[in-house]
Amino acid sequence: MAQRVYNFSPGPAMMPQDVLEASARALVDFQGKGVGIAEVSHRGKEFDAVREEAEQRCRSLFAIPAAYEVLFLQGGATQQFDLIPMNFLKGYAEYVDSGQWAAKAASTAKAYGDARVIATSKADNYSHLPAGWAATAAADYLHICTNNTIFGTRCPTFPEHHTLIADMSSEIASRPIPVGRFGLIYAGAQKNLGPSGVVLVIVRKELLAKAKKVSPIFSYAEHASAQSCLNTPPTFGIYVLLETFRWLEKQGGLSGMEKLNTTKAELLYGAIDGSGGFYKGTVTSTAERSHMNVTYVLPNEDLTTAFLKEADAAGLVALKGYRSVGGIRASIYNAMPLAGVQKLVALMQDFARRKG
Amino acid sequence: MAQRVYNFSPGPAMMPQDVLEASARALVDFQGKGVGIAEVSHRGKEFDAVREEAEQRCRSLFAIPAAYEVLFLQGGATQQFDLIPMNFLKGYAEYVDSGQWAAKAASTAKAYGDARVIATSKADNYSHLPAGWAATAAADYLHICTNNTIFGTRCPTFPEHHTLIADMSSEIASRPIPVGRFGLIYAGAQKNLGPSGVVLVIVRKELLAKAKKVSPIFSYAEHASAQSCLNTPPTFGIYVLLETFRWLEKQGGLSGMEKLNTTKAELLYGAIDGSGGFYKGTVTSTAERSHMNVTYVLPNEDLTTAFLKEADAAGLVALKGYRSVGGIRASIYNAMPLAGVQKLVALMQDFARRKG
Repeated sequence: MAQRVYNFSPGPAMMPQDVLEASARALVDFQGKGVGIAEVSHRGKEFDAVREEAEQRCRSLFAIPAAYEVLFLQGGATQQFDLIPMNFLKGYAEYVDSGQWAAKAASTAKAYGDARVIATSKADNYSHLPAGWAATAAADYLHICTNNTIFGTRCPTFPEHHTLIADMSSEIASRPIPVGRFGLIYAGAQKNLGPSGVVLVIVRKELLAKAKKVSPIFSYAEHASAQSCLNTPPTFGIYVLLETFRWLEKQGGLSGMEKLNTTKAELLYGAIDGSGGFYKGTVTSTAERSHMNVTYVLPNEDLTTAFLKEADAAGLVALKGYRSVGGIRASIYNAMPLAGVQKLVALMQDFARRKG
Repeated sequence: MAQRVYNFSPGPAMMPQDVLEASARALVDFQGKGVGIAEVSHRGKEFDAVREEAEQRCRSLFAIPAAYEVLFLQGGATQQFDLIPMNFLKGYAEYVDSGQWAAKAASTAKAYGDARVIATSKADNYSHLPAGWAATAAADYLHICTNNTIFGTRCPTFPEHHTLIADMSSEIASRPIPVGRFGLIYAGAQKNLGPSGVVLVIVRKELLAKAKKVSPIFSYAEHASAQSCLNTPPTFGIYVLLETFRWLEKQGGLSGMEKLNTTKAELLYGAIDGSGGFYKGTVTSTAERSHMNVTYVLPNEDLTTAFLKEADAAGLVALKGYRSVGGIRASIYNAMPLAGVQKLVALMQDFARRKG
């Protein structure tokens, strides 16, 4: 096997090697049964046990109250942009536009009813979170995106609303979250939980009871009452989530992850801020800097290209920033070890000395 | 690794060992790049190459005309039950009810418009395909299910319609099909193509141009114009499909598969028909017997239980029939080797000698 590189991809993203290896073994043979985990019925005892253990470990890791359902769905976070208004938009809903995905969630919802963008930071290229807004209690729900993958911002705290719905795709499981303050949390798996093709949904049961009637495949209530087996779920993807949950426990759970993620983020932001202006963070509000996606620019395009080339040669890959921001985006999700960030910082300092 | 069992599961189902092993290697490390295939961006060159090769090999295997799109989607065949009427039902559509899934496709469509069941064999517990019906040219489309997993029937030939839509989930890639006679073919991957969580859709381009306007995530046209990357697709699942397509080529393509599948099916049906009535096939029309799901009953429940127990002990697993049919269902998809069917037949003959 080749030497592992440090993969800073924004998603699908780096996974822990232990998770990959355990999943690869289970794909070929599950617990010595002579059959792989992707080859068994989703209604048989083997997969039942996998799904149940995945749910239980998820509940324990996130400290999910009993009043919440845990669902493993398909279609990506993008399909949730549709399902949320299909299920919950009756009067009007409020959306905070903190980035490209938050904007897409809002524009998608508009096809289903009165979805209102109550705040946006688009005019500043989303270099900070929208400020000075207040949601209304009469709104069916308030939708936020807690970490903006492209622009490198995250919510340091969460707003209050009776039905707070949050896209946490790019920061799920990176820090403890007060689940009880949310109506629904959703996250595509492909950044911090596993492979693409699985979406984790944590939803307050009381919301399901009063949801709109929609076709079963689009109904959270139906998926919940079928324990995520309304139809054949992405069984292998759910197995990888189980392995990820086991791995997260070994890292000290979400508190342990938060500690490591803070160390990694502080090291990297420290290198940016301590570069005498050679590297500049793109997020204007320090408190809103993401611990998952660290975005910064170099003095010009040529230096950016040269830096990316050197990084690639050093086994630090997928660092190119999104086109609307430019520069560098280092996605340092849970699976990125501290050593990867240390190596990136060392290159940054050396590069600045030579080119600064 | 444990000795592989012969796994007769109706789906998720047995996969070729070569496919599992190649996929497991790519999960941990893709082509010696130091990164697994599930860890790279769906918009990067590595996955681009995978998706393109998967599409090309699929086109070649199925002899798909250029006038058709090949899509890799999420949500299972069940979600297609919704997407088909959402995209194509304008006036009325006609459905042939040949089994539980065909019935579900029809009942789902009724929520979207005028979906008519023009024929059913439900009164005979679907022991044959509905007969004596004719579709109308004014219908937007005619929907059929070409292989009925639960009841063990399949279409020996296909009806004519300007827009024939077929659920081929449980027989896809088991025999050559005249793609040009269909408007849209769809199949969940978890029987003959790979893991659950991927759906193969082959659709005539001209249909997309005149489809109804729906939210992008539910639009075949949008998925087609984005080359299945409208949002993050199930990248690892698509990789497994690629490995399956490579494996299918080594088996002599779909003609080679059909030959092997016919040999397997004839051997098993021969054992049923040659048992002097100890085993009885549940399908009343011999020409409509499925080559994928072979359903038969024993003289009574006790003998069925005893047979299943002996089979399990012999490494012949997941043979229990669906509750509405009872008895035995041997799902002998592409990945089931002839040796597995031979071993099952030997047990059947020995069991009948001892208990008959």
